[in-house]
Amino acid sequence: MNTKVSLKQIERYPVYLNVLLSLRNSCINKVNSRLLADALGVSEEQVRKDLQIVSPHSSKPGCPRDVDTLINHLKEYLGYNQINKAILVGVGHLGSALLSFKGFDDYGLDIVAGFDIDPSITGESIEGKPIYSIFNLDNKIKELGVEVAIVTTPKDVTQEIVNKLINSGIKAIWNFVPIHLEHPDNIVVENMDLARSLAVFFHRINKK
Amino acid sequence: MNTKVSLKQIERYPVYLNVLLSLRNSCINKVNSRLLADALGVSEEQVRKDLQIVSPHSSKPGCPRDVDTLINHLKEYLGYNQINKAILVGVGHLGSALLSFKGFDDYGLDIVAGFDIDPSITGESIEGKPIYSIFNLDNKIKELGVEVAIVTTPKDVTQEIVNKLINSGIKAIWNFVPIHLEHPDNIVVENMDLARSLAVFFHRINKK
Repeated sequence: MNTKVSLKQIERYPVYLNVLLSLRNSCINKVNSRLLADALGVSEEQVRKDLQIVSPHSSKPGCPRDVDTLINHLKEYLGYNQINKAILVGVGHLGSALLSFKGFDDYGLDIVAGFDIDPSITGESIEGKPIYSIFNLDNKIKELGVEVAIVTTPKDVTQEIVNKLINSGIKAIWNFVPIHLEHPDNIVVENMDLARSLAVFFHRINKK
Repeated sequence: MNTKVSLKQIERYPVYLNVLLSLRNSCINKVNSRLLADALGVSEEQVRKDLQIVSPHSSKPGCPRDVDTLINHLKEYLGYNQINKAILVGVGHLGSALLSFKGFDDYGLDIVAGFDIDPSITGESIEGKPIYSIFNLDNKIKELGVEVAIVTTPKDVTQEIVNKLINSGIKAIWNFVPIHLEHPDNIVVENMDLARSLAVFFHRINKK
C-alpha cells in the first residue's frame, strides 16, 4: 500500500465508494470528477489526486471514468476483498450491536467471537458468533489465531483488558470506549470516538 | 464560538478532555504542554495553539496548566454544559444501543424518543425513552420541539426518512448509515461512519 497517502485521503475512499455504489444502483455507469467533487465537498483537482492513487490507469484526461472499475479498485485498495479476523470484548448494548451488524463482511472484517465477564451470556451466541468468558481470553486468542480486537467494555476496566489483549498477542485495537488508552508504539490503536464526531456535529450546528 | 478553529482542532478537544479526565482520576492537578503533546501525537506548539482558543487566560509561559480549569473550559467550549434534545430513527441493534447509552448526557446530548416502523416495539420504551411509530414522525417532531435527529435505519429507506425529517423541521442529522445522503445546504449532516474509521484502521495495520 502506498504510504504517501494522507489519512484524510484514506478517510475519503469509503465515501467515494458509497457515492459510486449509489450511482451504480441508479444504473449510472460513468462519472466525472465534477460530480464526485460536489458529492464529497472537495475540489476536482483533489478528486483527480485521490483517484490517481487507487486507480492510476482508469481515466483519460477529459473523459468520464467507469463506475464499476473505480468500485473494484477502491475495494481492492481498502482491503475489502481480503478478510481480517477479529474478536470483540464487552458484549453489552454496543458490543451486541456490532456482533449483529451484517455490514462488516463488505468491509473485510469478520468478528469471529465475543468475550464478556457476565456468566448469563457466556456460552451463548449472537448471529452465530460464540460468546466466551473473559477468563479464557488468552487461550482463545491463541487458538483462534486473531491479532485484531474490538473493545466495547465499560470505561473503568478498559485499560486493564487492553493490557491483557496485548500480552496475549493482539496487535491492533479498534477502540469504541471514550478513554485515552496507554499502549506500546508497535500496537495500532484506532479510536472510534462518538465524542469526536459529536463535537464536530455540535460545532457545525452552532455555526449556523 | 470562534469559527476560525479547524475541524481537526475540534476533533482533538474531546481527546484533550479524556486525557485530562484520566489525569484528574489519578489525582494529577497540573499538566504541561509536553505531556498533552505526547498523549495526542501532536507538537507542543500545536497544543499551545489549541488550548489558546478554548482557555486563553489559563496559563503563564513556562508554567504548567491547572487540570480542573482546562476541563471546565473544554466542556464549556464543546457545549457539554448545555443540552441538545434529539430523536433517534430506526430502533434496531445499533439504534437500541445508542438509546441505552448513558454517556451522552456528559456530551450534552439528550435522546428524548425513538421511532420505528415495527409495531412489536412501538409503544414500548428503552431506558425510559419512548418508541413511537414512524407514522407519527411529523406530529411528534413538532410536539417535542426537536431539531436534531440521529439516523440508524436500514440503508434502503434512509434517504426517504431523511427527506421526511427535513420536511418536519429537523435541521441537523447525525447519520450512522453508510450511505451518501442528499440534503439541502442549510441542513447539517454529520456522518458517523464505521467504514471510514475501519479504512484508517486497516491502513495503519497494513503499514506495520
